[in-house]
Amino acid sequence: MKDKLTIIKVGGGILNDQNIFEKFLFNFSKINGKKLLIHGGGIIASNLLIKLGISPKLVKGRRITDKKTLEVAIMTYAGLINKTIVSKLQKHNCNSIGISGVDCNLILSKKRKVKDIDYGLVGDIEEVNGGFIKTLLCSNITPVVCSLSHDGNGQILNTNADSIASHISIEMSNYYNVSLKYCLDKSGVLIDQNKTSSLLKNINLSYYKELVEKEIIIDGMIPKLDNCFYALKNEVNNVSVGGHDIIKNNFTNITLD
Amino acid sequence: MKDKLTIIKVGGGILNDQNIFEKFLFNFSKINGKKLLIHGGGIIASNLLIKLGISPKLVKGRRITDKKTLEVAIMTYAGLINKTIVSKLQKHNCNSIGISGVDCNLILSKKRKVKDIDYGLVGDIEEVNGGFIKTLLCSNITPVVCSLSHDGNGQILNTNADSIASHISIEMSNYYNVSLKYCLDKSGVLIDQNKTSSLLKNINLSYYKELVEKEIIIDGMIPKLDNCFYALKNEVNNVSVGGHDIIKNNFTNITLD
Repeated sequence: MKDKLTIIKVGGGILNDQNIFEKFLFNFSKINGKKLLIHGGGIIASNLLIKLGISPKLVKGRRITDKKTLEVAIMTYAGLINKTIVSKLQKHNCNSIGISGVDCNLILSKKRKVKDIDYGLVGDIEEVNGGFIKTLLCSNITPVVCSLSHDGNGQILNTNADSIASHISIEMSNYYNVSLKYCLDKSGVLIDQNKTSSLLKNINLSYYKELVEKEIIIDGMIPKLDNCFYALKNEVNNVSVGGHDIIKNNFTNITLD
Repeated sequence: MKDKLTIIKVGGGILNDQNIFEKFLFNFSKINGKKLLIHGGGIIASNLLIKLGISPKLVKGRRITDKKTLEVAIMTYAGLINKTIVSKLQKHNCNSIGISGVDCNLILSKKRKVKDIDYGLVGDIEEVNGGFIKTLLCSNITPVVCSLSHDGNGQILNTNADSIASHISIEMSNYYNVSLKYCLDKSGVLIDQNKTSSLLKNINLSYYKELVEKEIIIDGMIPKLDNCFYALKNEVNNVSVGGHDIIKNNFTNITLD
């Protein structure tokens, strides 16, 4: 039987609230068994861009990663956020290592092709080096992975953290019984965005499609849940979506059937 | 007999010149056998501080690391510079990993005590986790280490890269026959700062003391050479100081006797 591996993707809102962030990391450090944390940090990167007088570039509401924006992403994701997380986990005796998709060729990607929008220096994942993660986990090291990849030819690429979480979970399912959790600002999948009590305990693929059609599930929640179903379809054992309280664990459980 | 390990500390001036930086990394990737790269990035951090409207704080010519300065150091050292180096080394088929002293408790330090000057969030090295570096090297992974450490209690500390280089070299001498090279903006130890032809081929401890007394060796070169002699006194096999051209290798060789 395969060992259990918990993979958590933590959202930007949690990283940006000092109290919640501290509590989240303490709880994460207490998870039994092997674990891995994935983070981005879009909000913190945006704040730095503004401080530097660089206007975030958006086309049809989607962020464009130009050279300067990528530099700020590398500084905040791989630098400030990643090392802050690792230093706090070390304090809680969780021996961790902060890495990006560039390190040890963890995530190879291709610059997204230009169709209607040129997203700039954004990568779509091609390959995850699961063997390297396994080596770390076998040495009882907890990887903390930030949302950058590279093309193998010297170009770092901004990469969606939700997508990294599903791809790493799929790859690691070759070795482990993977439980993937997305931790968001809100509590999970809600029927009424203003009522925490409307949290769904479960959602399957057909119900998801129905809620998208009725425009109850909208905006950023759609690609997030698409990543969840993609992971489930590719042998990830367990996928859920919830808030920052991983101890309480009242997450929405995602299933195919 | 111990395996050979080449440890190189690269200076800020080299990192800041695009052409020299590219050539340096290409040459580094071609070094035979096990190797490790150490970098800081003070010049690039200073530029970002200025862009953010933060005045570098200096007391008696020495930089003071306050909270904002530390954040900028983390962003530039562990973020932009570290990941740029790793992505370029991967391009040259040198499988590398970018880490700081925080990752896997690589470098534990203590905040420098306040005597006449309060340097702020600066760490003096207490312990290097050589076993972790050995694990990486044994897996044919080249560590790229940036100049940050931590106190084990959640505080990241700015740490002198020259000092990290000597401490890591001393620790790794338990396992390897270590050759430590400091790559500077200038060519090595010069008798006349304006004449490359005045480069010393060798310098020993007594000659060094003589040149310091005559004020021929001055300023930043003194702590750098002190680090070299400290390494030699603590079993590091070979120490030299030179420019960016590690292939030509016309470095000043440092010896005790």
